[in-house]
Amino acid sequence: MDFYSTQITNLVEQLSRLPGIGEKSAQRLAFHILNMPEEQVAGLSEAMVSAKKNVRYCKECCTYTDEELCPICRNMRRNHRLIMVVENPRDLAAYEKTGKYEGVYHVLHGAISPMAGIGPQDIRLSELMVRLQKDVDEVIVATNKNLEGDTTATYISKLVKPLGVKVSRIASGVPAGGDLEYIDEVTLYRALEGRVDM
Amino acid sequence: MDFYSTQITNLVEQLSRLPGIGEKSAQRLAFHILNMPEEQVAGLSEAMVSAKKNVRYCKECCTYTDEELCPICRNMRRNHRLIMVVENPRDLAAYEKTGKYEGVYHVLHGAISPMAGIGPQDIRLSELMVRLQKDVDEVIVATNKNLEGDTTATYISKLVKPLGVKVSRIASGVPAGGDLEYIDEVTLYRALEGRVDM
Repeated sequence: MDFYSTQITNLVEQLSRLPGIGEKSAQRLAFHILNMPEEQVAGLSEAMVSAKKNVRYCKECCTYTDEELCPICRNMRRNHRLIMVVENPRDLAAYEKTGKYEGVYHVLHGAISPMAGIGPQDIRLSELMVRLQKDVDEVIVATNKNLEGDTTATYISKLVKPLGVKVSRIASGVPAGGDLEYIDEVTLYRALEGRVDM
Repeated sequence: MDFYSTQITNLVEQLSRLPGIGEKSAQRLAFHILNMPEEQVAGLSEAMVSAKKNVRYCKECCTYTDEELCPICRNMRRNHRLIMVVENPRDLAAYEKTGKYEGVYHVLHGAISPMAGIGPQDIRLSELMVRLQKDVDEVIVATNKNLEGDTTATYISKLVKPLGVKVSRIASGVPAGGDLEYIDEVTLYRALEGRVDM
């Protein structure tokens, strides 16, 4: 990109390192940024640096927060005896958007993956075990429905059950609005296995 | 997004204002940034602020540059008597990547669009006219092949021809590798109109 001057080339290169942003998107973003009002560029730049500097794990559930406790763990109207275990903060956000969950969360920041060399000690599992020393009624495992998520779910179940705490897993099945003929066989089979009385 | 703490919500909101970045991508980017090494976040942030502060129009061709002249206008091995007019710096980049163009450019930063209220005075046309006071052999109009690009091309042609400078327009036709049955009628018609002797 020697046809761009140094600073533009640098900006495009830095942007193209972000996930899901190829060279063309990086160029588009770079020129958009050059056209933004200076205060807005400063705002975006500060938001990044300040979030990176101040955001850490919630002392309770390990999600990202800029305070000691995240807004959900601070909320005393939530049911703190019901813990949903998710792989990352985006999954927490997805469940929050349903507006139907009243409990709290625990964010693992990953899933067990022997193939990728990620073991139980590499995710926030010991923090979960500490939380279970308080009164907890149920742990709902909402890790992804794939090999890593299932392995993690089984591992958690084996750890938690001996403590006398109920462990459940979110249901597998045909998604809402799903047209059966387009659904893969594993999902169809799981939906059959998990059938519920009407 | 009251389930995220303030600084994360702020970062996600700022990122989602960028073009082509929806709420989900903004979340993904935000969490990626939180996981980046601190120096890398600082690097990206500085690249944005510094590019915004230092980048301006090239004194000659009006593309973005952080010096008085862009690398292409500074390059004395390019043919400065041949000027390709493009709508924006990304189009310049696209032609540079062909590696086949030896002339210089002129970046309009837009196209004439009566519908959007963009007139000839809103794009960098007067700067082009100033350049034509020096010796120029040909102006190649490479604006987009749509209503705005064609309107701009016609306008430029009417301005430039009276100066005795040759004006040309990049060809319309079937793209390389194009399968005729999937090409729209306007393109097929233009390809026929613009047929060349073999």
